[in-house]
Amino acid sequence: MRATTIHAPGDIRFEEVPDPVIEEPTDAIVKVVAGCICGSDLWPYRGANDIDAGSTIGHECVGVVEEVGSAVKDFAPGDFVIVPFCHCDNTCAHCAAGVQSVCDNLGFTASGQGEYSRVTQADGSLVKTDGMPDDSLIPSLLTLSDVMATGWHAAVAAGVKQGGTAVVIGDGAVGLCGVLAAAQLGAERVIAMSRHEPRQEIARAFGATDIVAERGKEGGERIAELTKGIGADAVLECVGTDESMKTAFAIARPGSTVGFVGVPHGVELPVRRMFQKNVGLAGGMAPVRRYLPDLLDRVLSGAIDPGKVFDLTLPMSESPEGYRAMDERRAIKVLLQP
Amino acid sequence: MRATTIHAPGDIRFEEVPDPVIEEPTDAIVKVVAGCICGSDLWPYRGANDIDAGSTIGHECVGVVEEVGSAVKDFAPGDFVIVPFCHCDNTCAHCAAGVQSVCDNLGFTASGQGEYSRVTQADGSLVKTDGMPDDSLIPSLLTLSDVMATGWHAAVAAGVKQGGTAVVIGDGAVGLCGVLAAAQLGAERVIAMSRHEPRQEIARAFGATDIVAERGKEGGERIAELTKGIGADAVLECVGTDESMKTAFAIARPGSTVGFVGVPHGVELPVRRMFQKNVGLAGGMAPVRRYLPDLLDRVLSGAIDPGKVFDLTLPMSESPEGYRAMDERRAIKVLLQP
Repeated sequence: MRATTIHAPGDIRFEEVPDPVIEEPTDAIVKVVAGCICGSDLWPYRGANDIDAGSTIGHECVGVVEEVGSAVKDFAPGDFVIVPFCHCDNTCAHCAAGVQSVCDNLGFTASGQGEYSRVTQADGSLVKTDGMPDDSLIPSLLTLSDVMATGWHAAVAAGVKQGGTAVVIGDGAVGLCGVLAAAQLGAERVIAMSRHEPRQEIARAFGATDIVAERGKEGGERIAELTKGIGADAVLECVGTDESMKTAFAIARPGSTVGFVGVPHGVELPVRRMFQKNVGLAGGMAPVRRYLPDLLDRVLSGAIDPGKVFDLTLPMSESPEGYRAMDERRAIKVLLQP
Repeated sequence: MRATTIHAPGDIRFEEVPDPVIEEPTDAIVKVVAGCICGSDLWPYRGANDIDAGSTIGHECVGVVEEVGSAVKDFAPGDFVIVPFCHCDNTCAHCAAGVQSVCDNLGFTASGQGEYSRVTQADGSLVKTDGMPDDSLIPSLLTLSDVMATGWHAAVAAGVKQGGTAVVIGDGAVGLCGVLAAAQLGAERVIAMSRHEPRQEIARAFGATDIVAERGKEGGERIAELTKGIGADAVLECVGTDESMKTAFAIARPGSTVGFVGVPHGVELPVRRMFQKNVGLAGGMAPVRRYLPDLLDRVLSGAIDPGKVFDLTLPMSESPEGYRAMDERRAIKVLLQP
């Protein structure tokens, strides 16, 4: 098959690789209908993560089941499925506790930007739709494989509740989905920190009531003004840098929780401030499968339309251009079609 | 009056100092009936914190109101009161949210190991008993000014609930009170990490079902065994060192929360592990006033007897010996009588 691969920082290719095959009886092979590029794919692209030269890249996709292993009971070829980027048996103690991203049998999508992808623990991981969804729904369904579930996890971890103020740090696709999640979970005021007009527009469409364009210290001062000096009831940290984390703890009100979902890079947590202000931290890698049924209902009912985060669609063969567009912030998020 | 002062690391004195006086109309002066030495008093004693040479030390006490400022409505001379180490108006936005330790009008007890102590925001801070309590209750009532409320905060922050397993790191007085709190909050299994026989005994009396004497890696392995490899449902970190925090995150199950109340010294939080395992952190300086009414009921009804943490009682004039005894771990916690 053909798939997107990474060879070195900045060196993305779309090329022939071995077809994924059933390796365990619990596996399924999914023919990708749509994949996309994640903000976290930019870490290796920019040289911030180690690279296994020539390996496939891409962990978000939806598709049609092509083949299942002998132990797979709930899925059959032809099923349209959402593939969580982290695969899970959905039965172990961690899954039962809602932490499917730490499953005893954890696996990851490895060729979501390719023609086929192998899903481990298919029965536990996958969620299917009734029949083939309408083409117009594909982008929103695709976001459920990671980005929307991750934004949702940030909001849940931050303890967003009915009423109150939520601040979202980061206007990437995850941050924008965090805005949508905070609004859906009932935050009365959702403040998006964003400097970019097109992203501000999506944030507003997703339910942001206020936009703060300032960053760092000035951003903190604006949030303090907007919250009458009290701070935010919930903060969603959707970036993963030390600066964004510092901002998060600066604006969180005492007793609140920073929900974090950006893979931390160079973050030093301000433990003294956390202690003095009683501000907690929760979150991490999103347990996608936990949220999938609920999020699928919300997409199918039209309650949410997270597919709006895709502002560029390319043929999969042009994935290298997709990476460039996201790296240069010419695109928020790129959808790839086989 | 005479009070305990600190002049340099290891240099504790009991000497004549100016009487505290009403400075604001919201102040009260309390005649100390009993004070005590806190584990956190050992930080400056050991040279780990800055010292304002000659300043009074001691932030835990109970006593009888001697004098009140003109704005104090709810207390009068003669009232027996518990003095939270952190004073609060109990009306500001942070107090209303249950974070009295970040009150807009925060104050601290400064001469709890002296004959008199000034309490700011008396109406918000103090809680009184009906009449003079029996002498036998004084030790337990004294713990409510800090140590018991702090152990309670660790358990609440860690999310201890009915059922499940709580692990308490630290067998100082706070840790022991954490054991008591976890048991009261319904943890089915309470594991105390302690190497010291007399402390293990109190832990058992407070409701510990298991004792783990091992530390560090070995301690983590024992907890893993006891929890069938899953990890603890709640971890109470009652020390504040980097080692104890690392242990806490090593034994907390995915999706759980480490509740921390030990003032962090040299702690570097393992943010990558927190992310990968979805283990959160919550807690900080205890909002004593929030828990006081409930804890007072529990003491008066005999449900809890946290005064057991005091294993040495000295006349206040011997406070220097009290510090030595705690520093050398000859005493768990020292009660001082004027």
